[in-house]
Amino acid sequence: MTWPEPTPDARTGPPTRGPADLVITGCTALVHDEREEVGFVENATIVVRGGRIETVTAGPATAGPVTAGPAIAGRADPTTTGLAAAEHIDARGQVALPGLVNCHTHSPMVTLRGIAEDLPIEEWFNEFVWPIESNLQERDVELGARLACAEMIRGGVTCFADHYFSMDTVAAVTAESGLRANLGQAFFSSQGAEGRERSLDFALRHRDTADGRITTSLAPHAPYTVDDADLAATARLAREHGLLVHIHAAENRDQTDASLARHGRTPIEILAGAGLLDTDLLIAHGTGIVERDLPVLARASGRVGVASAPRGYLKFAWPTTTPVSALRELGIPVGLATDGAASNNSLDVWESMALTALAQKFTEADPRRLTSRQALHHATLQSARAVGLGERIGSLAPGRRADIVLVDLSGPHTQPVHDLAATLVHSARAGDVRTTIVDGRILMRDRELLTLDVPAVVREMNARMPALIDRSHGRRIQDYDT
Amino acid sequence: MTWPEPTPDARTGPPTRGPADLVITGCTALVHDEREEVGFVENATIVVRGGRIETVTAGPATAGPVTAGPAIAGRADPTTTGLAAAEHIDARGQVALPGLVNCHTHSPMVTLRGIAEDLPIEEWFNEFVWPIESNLQERDVELGARLACAEMIRGGVTCFADHYFSMDTVAAVTAESGLRANLGQAFFSSQGAEGRERSLDFALRHRDTADGRITTSLAPHAPYTVDDADLAATARLAREHGLLVHIHAAENRDQTDASLARHGRTPIEILAGAGLLDTDLLIAHGTGIVERDLPVLARASGRVGVASAPRGYLKFAWPTTTPVSALRELGIPVGLATDGAASNNSLDVWESMALTALAQKFTEADPRRLTSRQALHHATLQSARAVGLGERIGSLAPGRRADIVLVDLSGPHTQPVHDLAATLVHSARAGDVRTTIVDGRILMRDRELLTLDVPAVVREMNARMPALIDRSHGRRIQDYDT
Repeated sequence: MTWPEPTPDARTGPPTRGPADLVITGCTALVHDEREEVGFVENATIVVRGGRIETVTAGPATAGPVTAGPAIAGRADPTTTGLAAAEHIDARGQVALPGLVNCHTHSPMVTLRGIAEDLPIEEWFNEFVWPIESNLQERDVELGARLACAEMIRGGVTCFADHYFSMDTVAAVTAESGLRANLGQAFFSSQGAEGRERSLDFALRHRDTADGRITTSLAPHAPYTVDDADLAATARLAREHGLLVHIHAAENRDQTDASLARHGRTPIEILAGAGLLDTDLLIAHGTGIVERDLPVLARASGRVGVASAPRGYLKFAWPTTTPVSALRELGIPVGLATDGAASNNSLDVWESMALTALAQKFTEADPRRLTSRQALHHATLQSARAVGLGERIGSLAPGRRADIVLVDLSGPHTQPVHDLAATLVHSARAGDVRTTIVDGRILMRDRELLTLDVPAVVREMNARMPALIDRSHGRRIQDYDT
Repeated sequence: MTWPEPTPDARTGPPTRGPADLVITGCTALVHDEREEVGFVENATIVVRGGRIETVTAGPATAGPVTAGPAIAGRADPTTTGLAAAEHIDARGQVALPGLVNCHTHSPMVTLRGIAEDLPIEEWFNEFVWPIESNLQERDVELGARLACAEMIRGGVTCFADHYFSMDTVAAVTAESGLRANLGQAFFSSQGAEGRERSLDFALRHRDTADGRITTSLAPHAPYTVDDADLAATARLAREHGLLVHIHAAENRDQTDASLARHGRTPIEILAGAGLLDTDLLIAHGTGIVERDLPVLARASGRVGVASAPRGYLKFAWPTTTPVSALRELGIPVGLATDGAASNNSLDVWESMALTALAQKFTEADPRRLTSRQALHHATLQSARAVGLGERIGSLAPGRRADIVLVDLSGPHTQPVHDLAATLVHSARAGDVRTTIVDGRILMRDRELLTLDVPAVVREMNARMPALIDRSHGRRIQDYDT
C-alpha cells in the first residue's frame, strides 16, 4: 500500500466559520496526487462545511502543522466527541471514497428489472421495453425513480446521469432523495420539433436546482432515432445555452455497420457532422467506436466523455466493449455506468467498476491493465468529467462538493488487505458501503436509508404492475431498427 | 414466474419420528422438476430431520392432502410457534436455495488475496505465489482456511472442493466450521512417490469424517507438474479405493498448445492415457479444452465433471472460458468455482454464477444462453455432481442433506421480481444471503456467523504476515513452465 502525503491543497481550505457541519475521523481516504494517481491517506480526518470538503488531513489532528485541520480543536481522537462539528462519524476500519457516479442510466426502468431476459437487443426493445413504455404513467416513473435512488444510495452512488421520459418527475424525486444528478428529457425525431423543445425546456427549468445538485442536459435518443437536422439543432442549442448533450451512440458494432451501410458514415461521424463533438457531449456505450472514429474524436473541440456499462454488453453478447485504451490515448474520459436495470438487472456501479477492469483485460488480451488504480480513476475523476462535473466532484479534495461514501472492509471477503486498490475493486461489493453522503448530507447511515421508504414504493409499484406491463395493445413508443 | 406443483416425491419422506429438528416456513423454495428444470414453490415449508430434508411442501400447511407435511400439526402460520420442531425459521420474503458449492478452490490462499495483481499467470506463480508458499506454516493454513470458511458461509456456500497443502489442518477447520467439503492433498511429481502417498493417506484417513460432511479426493496438481507414471498410479489408486481425483487440467489455451508442442497430446489426452477419465474426475478450469478433446471426453467411463471459475480467466486475460455448451452436449456437468482468492480476489460463488452466464453469452455470441435457469442448474445439481455429491446435495428434495441458504430479496436492488431466476442470478448478491444451513445446522443466522471468529483470525493473520510474504530467500515450491 502507498499513502502519499496529502498535497499542499489538502491542508488548506476556506476560512473557518464556526463549527464544521460534519467531521469524519479515523478512515483511510482515497485521494489523487498532482498527477491524478490514486493513493490513500491513512487515519484521515475529513472536515465538511457548507456542503463542501474543507480539509482532508492525515493522522489524528494535533497541534502540528501537517495534520491540524482548521476546524478541529485539540486531538481528533475519534473516541471523543470534542470535535467542533455538528455531526461526527467515527469511520475507523472504513475507507472513504468519492461517491460513485452512474454516468448513464434510465433510473425509472428499475420497474422493468428482469422483464425481458436473455434476448438480443432487437427483441428486448421491440417486444418488451418499447411496448411496455407506451403504458408508462407519471406515477410509474416516480415510483421507479424512487426505487432507483434507493438502490443507488445503498450501492454508494452519489450522482447519476439520467436519460428518460417524464423528467420533471425524476427531478422531483432526485431532490427528495438528496442525490446529485444530471438529468435529460429524452426525445426522438418521431415526436417532431416538440420533443426537442421539451428537452430544452426541461433543461433550462431544472438546471442548478435542488441547491445546485441537479444539472441538466439535452437528450436526443440516438443517431438512429434522431435525424441529422435535429442533431444539428441540438448542437446549436447546447452551445447557445451552455448545456451538456447526453446521447446513445455507437452502442454496438451492428449499429456502426448499419450506419455505414445506410449513410456511409459511422454514428460518431454523424455526431461530428451535426456539430455535437464541438459541444460538451456524453456518449453512452460507444462499443461500436471503430478505428476511423478515432481521428474524428481527436478533433473534437467540446469536452467529450463516454459512459461504459460493461455488464449489458456481455449480457447482449455484443462482440466488443467500450475501447478504453484508445479513448485514453485521446484524453477522452470513460465513466462508469449501469444503463437501465431492465438490461443490466441492477444499478450496481461497483460491479461496473470491477467488470470494466476485467472486460478491458480480456478484450485487450493484457492482464496488466486496467489495473485497480486505473479502475478507481475511471470511477472517480473520469466519471465526474464524463457527466460534466469534473470541477465539482470526483475527488476528496478541498473545495469539492462533499459526496463521500464510507466502505467497511472488515468482512472476511475483504481481509487481509495487501493492496487496498485491489481490495476495493475486486473484493469489495456495493453492499459493503455503510454510509453515503451527498453535499455533506447523510443519505444512508450504517445501511439505513434516511430519505426514501422502499417498502412503500414496492407495494404501490406491484399494485400498478399489471396495467404497466400489458402488451396486448400492440403499440410501442418507437421501433428498434438501426 | 412459474411455480410448478411439487413433484410427488416432495410430499412424502421418511416416517415421522417426533419433532423435526428444523422447520423453515413462508419462503419461496427453488426446486427441480422431473426433467431437472428449475422452478419455484411459493410459500413453502421445509422440514428438516436428522440433517436431511424430509419434506418441501407448497403453501401453508393445512389438513389438506397437498400441503400437510407429516411433521406439522395444525396450520403452519409462520407467526405462530406451534410447529413441532426444535428450531423454526420464519423466512417470509426470502428464497430458499440449495447451498452453493465452490467446486474448486484453495481456501487458505485467502491469506494472499490481492498480493499479486494485474499480472500474467507466469509471473503470478513464479514471482509471488510459489515463492511465498515456500514459507507456508500449518498455522498460516489454519488461519487462511478459517477466514475462507467464514467468507464462504457469509456468501451462501455450503460445500467446497479444496486442493491444497496441509490438508489435515483444512479438514480440522472444515469440521469446526460446520461446512461440507471434498478435500484433497495436492502433490507434484517433484516430491517423489511421497507426495502421492501422502495424498492417498490423507484421503483414506479423512473420508466420511465430520459426521460424513468431509469426503476426499486424490489431488495431483496438473499434467504439467505430475508425470504420466504418477498420473497412471493415481488412476489405479482412485479405482482401487473408490476416490474422486481432483486435478487442474487444460487450464488455458497456452497449456494445451504447450502440451501439444512437447508431447503431441493435449492435457485431456494425457489424462485419458493415464486412465483418469475412467475414474471419477474433477477437472479444474478446462478453458483449454479443444475440439479434439471432445471425443476423448465422450469416451470417458468415469463420472467426469469440470469446475469453472470465470472471473480469473478474465483477470488473467485468457482468450477462452470453460466450453460449457460443448460439455453439456457430452453430459459433463460444469460446476461453479472461484479458484483461490489470490487470483479471484474472493470466494464469491454467487458472482461466479452470474459471470458464468455472462461469459457464456459473450463467448458463444448468443444472448439466449446461459439463461438464468440454466445458470441455477449449474449452481445446484451440476455443481453437486462435479464434486461427487450428486446424490447427497444440490437440490431441495426429500432425502437430500439439508444444505440450505435463505436469500433476502427485499432490498431495492432485487425489487420488483418479474423473473425470480433472473433476480437470483443477475440482481442478487452474495451479501443478500441471510442464513446458511449445512446438514440442518445453522452456521449463519441473519448474517451473524455462529461457528467462526473473524476478528481473531484477521488479527493473528496480520501479525504473521511479514514472515509469510518474505520472498528474499529466492526459493519457490515449484516452477510454472507448461
